[in-house]
Amino acid sequence: MRIGIWLAGARGSVAVTSIVGATAVRAGLADPAGCVTELPPLRDANLPPLGDLVFGGHDITGIPLVKKADSLVTAGVLPGGIAGSLGAELAAVDRDIRPLPSAGSQRETARLITADIVAFRDRHGLDRVVVINVASTEPVADHDPAHAGLAALEAALGETRAVLPPSALLAYAAFRAGCAFVDFTPSTGARLPALEELAAEAGLPHAGRDGKTGETLVKSVLAPMFAMRDLRVRTWAGTNLLGGGDGANLADPAANAAKAGSKQRVLREILGYQPQGSSHIEYVDDLGDFKTAWDLITFTGFLGVGMRMEFSWHGCDSALAAPLVLDLGRLVAVAHAAGRVGPLTELAFFFKDPLGDVPHALADQWALLTRFARELPHV
Amino acid sequence: MRIGIWLAGARGSVAVTSIVGATAVRAGLADPAGCVTELPPLRDANLPPLGDLVFGGHDITGIPLVKKADSLVTAGVLPGGIAGSLGAELAAVDRDIRPLPSAGSQRETARLITADIVAFRDRHGLDRVVVINVASTEPVADHDPAHAGLAALEAALGETRAVLPPSALLAYAAFRAGCAFVDFTPSTGARLPALEELAAEAGLPHAGRDGKTGETLVKSVLAPMFAMRDLRVRTWAGTNLLGGGDGANLADPAANAAKAGSKQRVLREILGYQPQGSSHIEYVDDLGDFKTAWDLITFTGFLGVGMRMEFSWHGCDSALAAPLVLDLGRLVAVAHAAGRVGPLTELAFFFKDPLGDVPHALADQWALLTRFARELPHV
Amino acid sequence: MRIGIWLAGARGSVAVTSIVGATAVRAGLADPAGCVTELPPLRDANLPPLGDLVFGGHDITGIPLVKKADSLVTAGVLPGGIAGSLGAELAAVDRDIRPLPSAGSQRETARLITADIVAFRDRHGLDRVVVINVASTEPVADHDPAHAGLAALEAALGETRAVLPPSALLAYAAFRAGCAFVDFTPSTGARLPALEELAAEAGLPHAGRDGKTGETLVKSVLAPMFAMRDLRVRTWAGTNLLGGGDGANLADPAANAAKAGSKQRVLREILGYQPQGSSHIEYVDDLGDFKTAWDLITFTGFLGVGMRMEFSWHGCDSALAAPLVLDLGRLVAVAHAAGRVGPLTELAFFFKDPLGDVPHALADQWALLTRFARELPHV
Amino acid sequence: MRIGIWLAGARGSVAVTSIVGATAVRAGLADPAGCVTELPPLRDANLPPLGDLVFGGHDITGIPLVKKADSLVTAGVLPGGIAGSLGAELAAVDRDIRPLPSAGSQRETARLITADIVAFRDRHGLDRVVVINVASTEPVADHDPAHAGLAALEAALGETRAVLPPSALLAYAAFRAGCAFVDFTPSTGARLPALEELAAEAGLPHAGRDGKTGETLVKSVLAPMFAMRDLRVRTWAGTNLLGGGDGANLADPAANAAKAGSKQRVLREILGYQPQGSSHIEYVDDLGDFKTAWDLITFTGFLGVGMRMEFSWHGCDSALAAPLVLDLGRLVAVAHAAGRVGPLTELAFFFKDPLGDVPHALADQWALLTRFARELPHV
Repeated sequence: MRIGIWLAGARGSVAVTSIVGATAVRAGLADPAGCVTELPPLRDANLPPLGDLVFGGHDITGIPLVKKADSLVTAGVLPGGIAGSLGAELAAVDRDIRPLPSAGSQRETARLITADIVAFRDRHGLDRVVVINVASTEPVADHDPAHAGLAALEAALGETRAVLPPSALLAYAAFRAGCAFVDFTPSTGARLPALEELAAEAGLPHAGRDGKTGETLVKSVLAPMFAMRDLRVRTWAGTNLLGGGDGANLADPAANAAKAGSKQRVLREILGYQPQGSSHIEYVDDLGDFKTAWDLITFTGFLGVGMRMEFSWHGCDSALAAPLVLDLGRLVAVAHAAGRVGPLTELAFFFKDPLGDVPHALADQWALLTRFARELPHV
Repeated sequence: MRIGIWLAGARGSVAVTSIVGATAVRAGLADPAGCVTELPPLRDANLPPLGDLVFGGHDITGIPLVKKADSLVTAGVLPGGIAGSLGAELAAVDRDIRPLPSAGSQRETARLITADIVAFRDRHGLDRVVVINVASTEPVADHDPAHAGLAALEAALGETRAVLPPSALLAYAAFRAGCAFVDFTPSTGARLPALEELAAEAGLPHAGRDGKTGETLVKSVLAPMFAMRDLRVRTWAGTNLLGGGDGANLADPAANAAKAGSKQRVLREILGYQPQGSSHIEYVDDLGDFKTAWDLITFTGFLGVGMRMEFSWHGCDSALAAPLVLDLGRLVAVAHAAGRVGPLTELAFFFKDPLGDVPHALADQWALLTRFARELPHV
Repeated sequence: MRIGIWLAGARGSVAVTSIVGATAVRAGLADPAGCVTELPPLRDANLPPLGDLVFGGHDITGIPLVKKADSLVTAGVLPGGIAGSLGAELAAVDRDIRPLPSAGSQRETARLITADIVAFRDRHGLDRVVVINVASTEPVADHDPAHAGLAALEAALGETRAVLPPSALLAYAAFRAGCAFVDFTPSTGARLPALEELAAEAGLPHAGRDGKTGETLVKSVLAPMFAMRDLRVRTWAGTNLLGGGDGANLADPAANAAKAGSKQRVLREILGYQPQGSSHIEYVDDLGDFKTAWDLITFTGFLGVGMRMEFSWHGCDSALAAPLVLDLGRLVAVAHAAGRVGPLTELAFFFKDPLGDVPHALADQWALLTRFARELPHV
Repeated sequence: MRIGIWLAGARGSVAVTSIVGATAVRAGLADPAGCVTELPPLRDANLPPLGDLVFGGHDITGIPLVKKADSLVTAGVLPGGIAGSLGAELAAVDRDIRPLPSAGSQRETARLITADIVAFRDRHGLDRVVVINVASTEPVADHDPAHAGLAALEAALGETRAVLPPSALLAYAAFRAGCAFVDFTPSTGARLPALEELAAEAGLPHAGRDGKTGETLVKSVLAPMFAMRDLRVRTWAGTNLLGGGDGANLADPAANAAKAGSKQRVLREILGYQPQGSSHIEYVDDLGDFKTAWDLITFTGFLGVGMRMEFSWHGCDSALAAPLVLDLGRLVAVAHAAGRVGPLTELAFFFKDPLGDVPHALADQWALLTRFARELPHV
């Protein structure tokens, strides 16, 4: 099975790290560390080989991948030697990255996006393409009556106004191209009734949302620990300092609100109550692609005695996200081949704000994921 | 079913916190926060009520419980109001705490310990007594040929030398009294072939060892997170600053070695390899019953990029241990009633250095525990 | 010399901790730990004895001091024994705390405040009263043409609008009563040209502003370290989690802005440039009178190599502030007696946002303070 | 004035970083960040230009500097571009680094060391050479009667036994060559009565010991903060995780003891009492030239309320040490030219364990240093 990965935001840090990594693994220059699908219980699931993935995508900038890769080397995200030796392979992928289309109506824009994806699939003779959104986080979208059903949406798409935020328009175009869709960002993506209807009608699966790469990952194992020990969490407050493109974007209060909300939801879901405190996001340009998160947790135990825990996490967001993008591409492609339709709730393991009524504790999500992988048919 | 809890080290901080807590819950003065057996999946297991537990034990000191409780109030471990209103109840328990016997031979000492336990059981008409070791940590015991089998042990017990360390002699005496045994410390306890043989012969269960109350608890959820995400842990180094009686004791290099070893084992078991770094223990009198642990974790992800995490944990060891002592008393009593014999490996959730070939990830231990509780017969 | 301390916000945590502490020291129940004026170089400055200070003040609430003290015992700020034994003394001070007056014009309100202060001075036969603002932080005040000079201010005070924020009206009333004034908060206080004019005309000293009790204190020693070693600070970002009354108040964006600004100023003043990052303030009710601050500092050294430091500070704000309030009362009283007029810039040591063109490094401020104390006349 | 810097351990990380840095500054490839002598108050002291320093030294290994520099690039200590472009300059310095001599008696070994230093001075026509010990830390040396006076030492040097540890033999040889000596390590160096006598007789200055580059630097500003605020430090306990050559060496209990001792001395000197807790050192190979130190400080304030602070420091030891080595070379050379004899106590700013009865607070040491620099004659 030949699989294509179509990346929205294909010249961004996460996308370029994914492309360089998969290419390096194929060339035997790196091992697939950080790829969950390479761990024993998933490795046996007959997924398409990592090295066989074909990349394409959209981006608003035209900076060549090799140049972007160089800047990621300088930033300490990519190792110098590897990126330098993949010039030809990256130039080849460059030819499959198109400028993001924009037309007079969203219907026409979607048609152009769909056409680019279909052309990519045809050009490479791919069995299946998974469309993955790794573009910058959008502000929270306004509600619109046209989101409620497919018929209303289709009517509204012909108007001049923008009825869908870009991430949802992308999901629409992906479904229209017959492709599965993954939202790796906190943006709207396929999370509208009209798009759920379209996915069902077209018989396509989708997954999301918001890749779990740092502070929330830690919360998803620490919060169950407090719950399993019947320790009452009173305060869980944290701050995230991050640079990079998405950092600047998240400093925007509207985007920030979306992200901070999903960051605290995990606590309420796991603990059954909402501790005091919030999750603050601050942009610090100097930190580049790295993120420092600090959390304070105060809790009480037997007879009410007060205790506390702090942690700080210094992670490279792009390096944490990229292998998950590859994992999702492989898993969703096989789910598509297996005839799965609608939200792939079993992939909650990968997301901060997972689709469906699913567990938020990482160990439970892992059990869900490994069972899912075991039961995938050989395709 | 009437259950007795016989505590070795009955006037120590952990024991007194357990006794005060259970008494306060019975009197309606406190809720059983921190008791795992009060959480939904275990609460339904038909365990004997927390308030029905009867306490007794041995100690080398004779300080009245009420006085020890006062000092725990000053230390911030117990709330002032509660301890002050339980004077009569604590005085009643005082009468069931005996001086630790010591005779010319270990056989005779064991006989006196057994006699104290049996008298306690008879005096209160208890169906069952669980003996729990919460005494100070011993130095690692020397190997002795007499540990290898029950016959050899019986012969050696009549000699004047001490063939068994105190914790193992306690386990021997408990089994001879027909009681289940729990080792909440890193000491030897029932972990000798001769004592396993005795437990089997007497048809008794036992559990251990070394209650998991702080840094190792955190390790048992963070290490699986790194494993599930295929992030390679390079360094995991930590330091534990602790005061209190056990702190002074653990500063002894021999005891320290025992504890630090079991603290790193969890990483090797979960990760499948041993990261660099060790776990250091230091006694700081000023910290009293509280402990501060700090850990540094460095790890690499996709394409080898280096990242790091730090955490610090400020916990009250006695308050974290006491509810687990109550949990273990209830669970082991029912397992005894249900006819379980030998090591109760399903109780790994409670221990740093669990018996048997069991998972070390907390979520897996939780699954094991809840299944165990579900399958306990109604007795 | 008999000295009175008139506290605006006299029933708040800082004020009550100050009053209880001074009373306990007088009664021989506590030592004056945390009082800078009791350290060798200042102890010899012939300041009025701590135990001789007489307290009075204004507050909008009428909760008795003894009740407020009890709540501070519960919160862990005051030791139980001490507060309990000072009932009579605290009740006596209660009689010198008046409800904050409010009249139709600010001129009339000021007249009533002045009258209360004068009556307090007369009632106790005090040589001198120092008025100290420890009330809640105000929002940043709007500019007003009447702030520019005393004549314009006097005219405006007769109007019905509020030309001065409460802290500035307090300073006005204090000066009209012939008293020195200290602003321990980030509010406006005496920092208006019209009030500077009044202080000069009345021959009175004043000091401020914003007591330096936690994160900024640490910054004032760490930033000079980086400067003296020529290490370039790139990011200095922090978060402050605090409960208590002032915490709720500072969560208000307007007050927050005032405080966060003065918190970063110290870096620019010491380093000579402004690193990236800001100082975030968040209200977490559960933390009570304690505050947790966390700061991340990234810096580069020789040949540009990147390094980092983090610190977390868990302090009790009232306990850190109260001894400084006593110090300031003593020092400002003697400065007043010695004929000092206008801003006491030598007291920069005590403040986050000190008056005048003064050093911000703590060691330099200490040198300034000790020289000031040495040169104070014996009065 | 032409100055030579003779480095014992000239191919180690600190030495190579110093050499590369000075060479890069001369070539205009880097600015002298981290050099204290380039800050305003010292820059004006008429020190020899950084770029004019000439380097030589001893080492037991013969690895070329350019190769060692490459490994420091890989380790993240040196920037890639710079080290790569200095091949010719480093090869030139290589020719001035000799194998460490070793003969049948220490007298003969010293004679060979002296001869190497003198030849270096003559070869380059240097006015003055400063010998700086940056070799690995030695175990604490045993006392020897021959250390007590120069005559006894001279007699013992002819024997076959090693009367002096290597660092002291180096100081001896330096003085015999008419050179000033600096001990940047915790080793013995010139700190023996016999060597003090020799320095006095030869009219030579010396400085030391143990460069202050991380945790102790932070202590030297935080401890004065607690002292100036009259906050009682109860516990100050820390752990240092370090890799690199010196890390492995310091893991040796004997060397460790020397270092840990000097690390706590600073607290006693500044606070006037010794808080509880110790400073632990652990070798973690994976950390390379970087060091992570974590410290816990508990303290009490007004009325005994308990508070705490933690910090962690992630520094690159070689990058922190190298500019100080250059600073010391320049300052000591000028002090020598100015006729200073014996310990240069004014250089306490640079050392963990400074010579003489000097202040340990960094700000006081800075005042001492800047006055020293101001008063240096123009030579």
